[in-house]
Amino acid sequence: MGKLVGNVLIAQGGGPTAVINQSLVGAVLESRKFPEVDRVYGALHGVRGIVEENFIDLTQATTHNLERVARTPSSALLSTRDKPDAAYCEKIFKICMKHNVRYFFYIGGNDSADAVRIVNKNAHEANYELRCIHIPKTIDNDLRVTDHCPGYGSAARFVACAFAGANLDNRALPGVYIGIVMGRHAGFLTAASVFARKYEDDGPHLLYFPERTFRREQFLSDVETVYKKYGRCLVAVSEGITGEDGQPIITQLMGNRERDDHGNVQLSGTGALGDLLAESIRTDLNIKRVRSDTFGYLQRSYVGIVSEVDQAEAREVGEKAAHFAIWHNVDGSVAIKRTGDYSVDYFLTPLETVARETKHMPDNFITPFGTDVTDDFKVYARPLLGQMPDYEQLMAPLVAKK
Amino acid sequence: MGKLVGNVLIAQGGGPTAVINQSLVGAVLESRKFPEVDRVYGALHGVRGIVEENFIDLTQATTHNLERVARTPSSALLSTRDKPDAAYCEKIFKICMKHNVRYFFYIGGNDSADAVRIVNKNAHEANYELRCIHIPKTIDNDLRVTDHCPGYGSAARFVACAFAGANLDNRALPGVYIGIVMGRHAGFLTAASVFARKYEDDGPHLLYFPERTFRREQFLSDVETVYKKYGRCLVAVSEGITGEDGQPIITQLMGNRERDDHGNVQLSGTGALGDLLAESIRTDLNIKRVRSDTFGYLQRSYVGIVSEVDQAEAREVGEKAAHFAIWHNVDGSVAIKRTGDYSVDYFLTPLETVARETKHMPDNFITPFGTDVTDDFKVYARPLLGQMPDYEQLMAPLVAKK
Repeated sequence: MGKLVGNVLIAQGGGPTAVINQSLVGAVLESRKFPEVDRVYGALHGVRGIVEENFIDLTQATTHNLERVARTPSSALLSTRDKPDAAYCEKIFKICMKHNVRYFFYIGGNDSADAVRIVNKNAHEANYELRCIHIPKTIDNDLRVTDHCPGYGSAARFVACAFAGANLDNRALPGVYIGIVMGRHAGFLTAASVFARKYEDDGPHLLYFPERTFRREQFLSDVETVYKKYGRCLVAVSEGITGEDGQPIITQLMGNRERDDHGNVQLSGTGALGDLLAESIRTDLNIKRVRSDTFGYLQRSYVGIVSEVDQAEAREVGEKAAHFAIWHNVDGSVAIKRTGDYSVDYFLTPLETVARETKHMPDNFITPFGTDVTDDFKVYARPLLGQMPDYEQLMAPLVAKK
Repeated sequence: MGKLVGNVLIAQGGGPTAVINQSLVGAVLESRKFPEVDRVYGALHGVRGIVEENFIDLTQATTHNLERVARTPSSALLSTRDKPDAAYCEKIFKICMKHNVRYFFYIGGNDSADAVRIVNKNAHEANYELRCIHIPKTIDNDLRVTDHCPGYGSAARFVACAFAGANLDNRALPGVYIGIVMGRHAGFLTAASVFARKYEDDGPHLLYFPERTFRREQFLSDVETVYKKYGRCLVAVSEGITGEDGQPIITQLMGNRERDDHGNVQLSGTGALGDLLAESIRTDLNIKRVRSDTFGYLQRSYVGIVSEVDQAEAREVGEKAAHFAIWHNVDGSVAIKRTGDYSVDYFLTPLETVARETKHMPDNFITPFGTDVTDDFKVYARPLLGQMPDYEQLMAPLVAKK
């Protein structure tokens, strides 16, 4: 097969992460090395920028600028929540043809993978050679096939460090502390809060995942048990916890609030769930000092908290996208395979294996009682957070009273 | 005067900070060098631990342990919200006598300074030689006399980095974002959010301080103006903002909630204020994407975010406390004097000049319109945050549409 000569088009979709620009810059710098690539275009605001032909020419960005952008959190090409249907994808394809785009890279989650899949199908049916690569990112870690998702490690690190601090604060001024963590369907991010623990009495003492049904009475009884034992209690709660009716607890609080294109009610950007749970404890357990923090957007784009491992892998999935498309002339979604403890390799998986459906935490990651994680999870997740900052309690003997 | 031989007693009071243990360890390690010091006791849970004789012997802590504790956020000796009255202070003094305490160091805010002042008075009246030193700490930066307070720089850094990330996130997925920042009476911490800005369109675009009356209509009009200009708006709001009736806005939301010993309603540990403001914007301005995050306890004890400058100064105020008490045999509160741009020196100020009353942001730190800070503030505060992490926007030309 002859070399496919033309332009690269790259975009970023969905919620930003701390390392999504590493993938962008990896793909851009690697693409610029190939003589068959004329221009590298970046679409602004994801697929929306494609249909609106809102492109910038990344061939003209300096390497210095790109390297600094790589270390900047959130989507430098800006993002969108648009979920393209067939007609939308047809428009994307037409614009690709018009600009002689031969390599299309889209960095995003399962919905982004689906858009790439449809555009790829359109090109194939029109007999237009267009290599389509989905580059994975999500802080939720809920993509299928890949061992884990770039973006998760850094968000997990943020959550673990937040709980480590909250635990120390709660030891100093005891009470009940609830931290609400992102994660609509998957509890991976909430699970990472366990890396905050060092000493025997360290929290979080209880974790609540979307994978298990949330029962208010059981929750109150769990909190009471821990509070009686330690005189305090730290709780990590996924924003997506769901009641026995199968509805997220938070929807009970939201009324007729904004829904996105996916029909999902907004879960983040409000403290309502934490406040509801805190009020329950205050009223029903009669505990005076109850606090809740909703970590919100800080989890995915805080400037200055990043996992080195996550950063390197995000860069490599971007570079690999260029390799697969331009060297190997194949389509698919870049995935991570764990090859050792801890080492990884990358491979390409068909787009349909990643598109649409997401993945939940497997049962062997959650303890039978449902409020903690197993060692299986710890072995899986610990390398992804990078070297965690250490902290220490005072070690000194008690003085006899007089 | 002969050398005062006896024991040291040290404790930590009030809300923890990221660097309060630097002050503890500075005072402990420095005290241990003096031959006139027999033992260095740490009281657990502040003044409460003193009246309950709940001491640990820090003379027996390893240097290694102490150095690691110094780099650990939150109060390693644990804390209390107790505000001692005359009888309580008399008990503290009696316990000091019983344990031959000759040097009393209390790390805390203005209320802690007042407790130290009363204990010092008791000792003087009883003709018992007891050196009493208050070591300043507060993330609010609201102590009198001192140029700034240890603990502020690190919390300010946390807030600035959080807004830098939120700004990048909000650029990618535009809307209105409200970040609620700690600070009951002083807006110093909210003001630090301006160090998140780098480019012309960067937020926070509006700041609301406890020092200025909060008017809902004006707030909505401010947000609308920014939103029309940039298509997005980032807002930094002090949790302590107060309405025209002189009452904190948040108390309207709290009902008959917990009050502390100081008669203050709980402001932190709830997302209610952010949610109220967000709902206002959603309803009255008909803007769809409105999010609020309440930074909460992460601001004061996040593990891994610290200002190097703050850390060093917190250590030195602790060391200086030992020098003033043991070498110079004087009482007072350690204060920071700014001697250059940027350099500092330390001095001792009488306890009554720091006790009880707090300080607000001076008028020259706030712009006339009231929703931004002046260069005076920037010159004052920037050195305190340490070297901030940098981030960069993509710099590339637009591509012509076809």
